[in-house]
Amino acid sequence: MKVIVDLCVVPIGVGVSLGPYIAACEKILIKAGLKIKLHAYGTNIEGEWDPVMQAVKECHETLHAMGVPRISSTLRLGTRIDREQTMEDKIRSVEEKMQ
Amino acid sequence: MKVIVDLCVVPIGVGVSLGPYIAACEKILIKAGLKIKLHAYGTNIEGEWDPVMQAVKECHETLHAMGVPRISSTLRLGTRIDREQTMEDKIRSVEEKMQ
Amino acid sequence: MKVIVDLCVVPIGVGVSLGPYIAACEKILIKAGLKIKLHAYGTNIEGEWDPVMQAVKECHETLHAMGVPRISSTLRLGTRIDREQTMEDKIRSVEEKMQ
Amino acid sequence: MKVIVDLCVVPIGVGVSLGPYIAACEKILIKAGLKIKLHAYGTNIEGEWDPVMQAVKECHETLHAMGVPRISSTLRLGTRIDREQTMEDKIRSVEEKMQ
Repeated sequence: MKVIVDLCVVPIGVGVSLGPYIAACEKILIKAGLKIKLHAYGTNIEGEWDPVMQAVKECHETLHAMGVPRISSTLRLGTRIDREQTMEDKIRSVEEKMQ
Repeated sequence: MKVIVDLCVVPIGVGVSLGPYIAACEKILIKAGLKIKLHAYGTNIEGEWDPVMQAVKECHETLHAMGVPRISSTLRLGTRIDREQTMEDKIRSVEEKMQ
Repeated sequence: MKVIVDLCVVPIGVGVSLGPYIAACEKILIKAGLKIKLHAYGTNIEGEWDPVMQAVKECHETLHAMGVPRISSTLRLGTRIDREQTMEDKIRSVEEKMQ
Repeated sequence: MKVIVDLCVVPIGVGVSLGPYIAACEKILIKAGLKIKLHAYGTNIEGEWDPVMQAVKECHETLHAMGVPRISSTLRLGTRIDREQTMEDKIRSVEEKMQ
C-alpha cells in the first residue's frame, strides 16, 4: 500500500531552535531512500507504508538519542486504491484548476 | 518505545456518513489489545509504537477492503523518555492546574 | 457557521511540563462560553466559527504573555451544512455502529 | 501577531477528485493577499493572524456554497515572539544544518 505522508516533528524541551533536529529527520528520510520534499511546516514523503512509517519511527528514536526528552509529531496519511497518484500529481491537479 | 497517539481517519468518496467506517477502526484498535478512548474528533491510543502503528495500517487496509477508495488520516504522535505518562496522567495533569 | 474543532496547543521553549499552559487554554475556552471536552491529546470544542477561532487566538496570545516564546498548535476543523451535529452525536454515531 | 499556517482542506461527500475544491481555496488565499506556497499535502500560509484565519473561514464558506456538504480541515498554527521568522527562514534553517 502506497502512502503520501506529511510529517511535522516538534521536539519539546530543547529550546526554540529546532532546525538541527528537523535536519536530522530529513537525513533519516533521505537515507531510507524515500521521496521527500521539505516545506515550511513539515515534509512531504512518498513511498510504501512500511518503510515510510519505519522512517518516522527512526526520527523519534534518533531525536530521543540526541537528547530530546519529548516529541509531539503530526502526520497526515493519504492512501487511495482508485488510482496511482504521486506528490507531483497532487500539486499539478490543483494548479491546472487554477488557470 | 511507548507512544500516545491521537488518530482521526477520514474516508473520502463514500458520502458524508462516516460512522460505520470509524466504528470498523475502533474494532480493529480494540482487537489489537490497545488502550483507546474515542472522542468527538478522533481516538486516543496508548501502547508500544509497533502494535499501535500496525493497527493504524490495518484501519486503512480494512477501510479500503470495505470499498473506501481514498483515505486521509491525521495523527498526533507523542513520545517521551524523561518519564512514563499515561493518557489519564495527561488529563489529570491539566485538570489539577485548573483548580 | 457552526464548527467542531479539535485543538492541541504545544508550547515550545518552556521545558517538558506543559500542563499549566494547557490549563490556561482550557480556562480561556470555558470563559468564552464554549462547549469543550478535554482528552489526552487535545480538546474538542463546539461553537460558532468566530468565537471558537477568537478563543484559539486568545490561547496563543495568553501563552505568549505567560512567557512562552514559541507555539505550534494543531487543529482539526469540521463544518457541515447537510445537518446539525453535536460532539455527542459524533460519538454516539460511532458507538451505535460498534454494537 | 504573525502566524505561519499549514492548511489542508478535505471536502467530504463530493467524491474522490478534490482538485477543483483545493484550487478554489488557493484562489481565496491569493485574493486575500496572503503569502502562500502549495505543497503535496496542504498549503503554507504566512501573514497576520486575523486575515489568515478569515481566509480559512472563507475557504469553508466557499466550498459549502459550491455544494460540499461536509469539510474536515487540518491546520498547523505556528506563532513566536522571540524573533521574526518567514517561511523561507524555516526552510533555510533546516537546509543549512543538512550540509
